[in-house]
Amino acid sequence: MTGPSAVAATGRRFGDRVTDHVAARESQIVLGLDPDPSRLWPGSGDGVPADGPPAARAAAAVAAHCRAVIAAVAPAVVAVKPQLACFERLGAPGRAALGAAVEAAHEHGLLVVADGKRGDIDVSATAYAQSLVGTTPTPYGDVPGLGADALTAAPYMGVDTIDSLLAVTRPAGAGVFVLVRTSNPGAADVEDLELAGGGPLWEHVARIVDRLGEGDGAALHDVGAVVGATRPEHVARMRELMPRAVFLLPGVGAQGGRVEDLAPAWAPGPAGGLATASRSIVQAAERGGVGTPAAAARAEAERLRDAAWSLA
Amino acid sequence: MTGPSAVAATGRRFGDRVTDHVAARESQIVLGLDPDPSRLWPGSGDGVPADGPPAARAAAAVAAHCRAVIAAVAPAVVAVKPQLACFERLGAPGRAALGAAVEAAHEHGLLVVADGKRGDIDVSATAYAQSLVGTTPTPYGDVPGLGADALTAAPYMGVDTIDSLLAVTRPAGAGVFVLVRTSNPGAADVEDLELAGGGPLWEHVARIVDRLGEGDGAALHDVGAVVGATRPEHVARMRELMPRAVFLLPGVGAQGGRVEDLAPAWAPGPAGGLATASRSIVQAAERGGVGTPAAAARAEAERLRDAAWSLA
Repeated sequence: MTGPSAVAATGRRFGDRVTDHVAARESQIVLGLDPDPSRLWPGSGDGVPADGPPAARAAAAVAAHCRAVIAAVAPAVVAVKPQLACFERLGAPGRAALGAAVEAAHEHGLLVVADGKRGDIDVSATAYAQSLVGTTPTPYGDVPGLGADALTAAPYMGVDTIDSLLAVTRPAGAGVFVLVRTSNPGAADVEDLELAGGGPLWEHVARIVDRLGEGDGAALHDVGAVVGATRPEHVARMRELMPRAVFLLPGVGAQGGRVEDLAPAWAPGPAGGLATASRSIVQAAERGGVGTPAAAARAEAERLRDAAWSLA
Repeated sequence: MTGPSAVAATGRRFGDRVTDHVAARESQIVLGLDPDPSRLWPGSGDGVPADGPPAARAAAAVAAHCRAVIAAVAPAVVAVKPQLACFERLGAPGRAALGAAVEAAHEHGLLVVADGKRGDIDVSATAYAQSLVGTTPTPYGDVPGLGADALTAAPYMGVDTIDSLLAVTRPAGAGVFVLVRTSNPGAADVEDLELAGGGPLWEHVARIVDRLGEGDGAALHDVGAVVGATRPEHVARMRELMPRAVFLLPGVGAQGGRVEDLAPAWAPGPAGGLATASRSIVQAAERGGVGTPAAAARAEAERLRDAAWSLA
C-alpha cells in the first residue's frame, strides 16, 4: 500500500509536473515494467521464502526484480510505467508487488504511469481512478489507492468515461493518457477506420483529447495521448491536432520504433513526449548489451535518453 | 485464490456452457456486483476485525456482503458479474475479496463474468487472460487466476488484442464479451460515429465479434457482445449482425433499460441474452422493495427472471 506521490502534494497540474520532472532529470524516457516471473533478473529470487503459495513467492521475486531494475535505470529515466496485467495475474500478492514497485519509483523521484487502459462508466470509472490515483472512503477509514501519477484510458465508451476519471485525477494533480493511435498491427482494424465526416477514427479521438485537456496559459495539458512510436508519420499529425497534450510513446525498442523518428512529439517543449521502452531496456543484456543486466539496462536507457534529448 | 470453475472442466465451449446453464437454471439474469464499502448490506461488518488497516477491514466487509447477496439471489440468476474496479480500489485485500465472491458464485453453481473491459496487446493481453480465466506459469509453480468463466473486453485497439485473449480463454472453455454498443450517454461520442463505408462504428465492431466467435453447428459462439439495454432499437440490428453471439445486456433496472424491450436478444434461444442488473437488485429494499435487503433483492431478481423468461 503506497501513498500518493510526494510531488502530487504541490498542487500543480499534471502537465506542469511532467514539465518540471523532465527538466530536472533531463530525460523523457519511461521505463516500462511488464515482469514475467520466468524472465526476471538473476538474484530476484534470493529473498523469496523457501515455501508458501506460488503466487506469494513469484510476487516476491517480481517485486525484487522491479526494485533492482528501477534502481539500475532510475538516473536515466523520468518515469516508470507498470503494466497492470503483469502484476494482476499474481493475485493479491501481485497487487502488493505492484505497490512495492510504485514505492520504489517514487523513492527514486520518478513519476508513475499506471498502464491498465481502463475505460468504464460512472461509478466504475470513479472506482478505477480511486484505485490508481485517488482514495476510497470507507466506514473503516480512507483506503489509499496505488498512488500513481497518471493512468492510461481507453476511449471506446466515450467522453463521459474520461470525464469520470478526470473528476478524480485532476484534483490530485494526476494525468490521464487516452489511447489514440497505438503501435500494434490491429490498430488498423478500428483506430484507422475512415469516418463519414472525414479522417480516421484516431483523429476524432485526438480532438476529444485536445478538448478535454486543461493547463495554464501555454502549459502542457493534463490529458495526454498514447501514440504508437511505430508509425512516425502519424506523430506530426497528432501534434497538429493536440498541440498541448503530452504524448506517451510506446513501441520504442522491442516493437521497432526509433526515438529519432519522433521529433514532432517535442514541438511544445522537452516534456511534450515521453518515450517508453520496456523489454529493450530490461532485457538489454540478453539482447547483446554489455555487462550485467543492470549495467546493460542502464546503458540502453542512457542511449535512448540521449537520442530523445537531442531532438527536444 | 480460486481455481477454475468446476463447469469449465467439462471441455465444452463457452456458448454451450451458457446454453446448459440457462436451461438448467431457467434464468438469463446476471447479478452485477459493484460493492461500495459505504453501502453494504446490514450485518456485512459483523465479522470484520476490530482493528487493522482500513483496506483489510473494508475488504472483509465487502466479501461478506457479496457472499450474502449471492446466497440470497442465486436461485433466480444464472451468473454474477463482478465489476473489477470496485474490488481493485481496496488493494490486495480487495483482490482477496474478489476471489471470495467468485468462489461463492461457483459454490452456488453460477457462472462468473469478470467485468474489467480489458484491452491490450500481446503479452499484456495474455497476462489479463491468465489473470482472469487462466493460469500463470512461474518457477515457483503455476499461479491460478481468478477462475472466471468469461471476461469483458474493449475493442479499440483491434482484433489482435481480442485474439490474444481468445488464445487463453478458448482452451479453457471461457468466453469473451466485447463492448459493442454500451448503455451510457457517451456511447454517442465514439461508438455511434458514422463510418465512411456506411453504418456506425458499433456495427463494424459487431461484425468483428461475429467473425471471431466459434461454436459447433448452430450453437452459440464463445465471443459475445456487450449491448446496452437502454437503446432497445439497437438490439434487433445487433442480432442481424451477430446471429450467434451471446448478448450481455447491462443497463436493466437502475440505468433505465426494460427487459421487455429486449426480445430480439433471445432469437437464437433462451441463452442468447443475459440481462445484467446490479443496483436494482442489490439495493431493491432501499428502492421500495418489500422486506429485508435479501428478500427484496431475491424478489426483484425473480421479477426480472420471469420477465426475461417469458420472452425467450
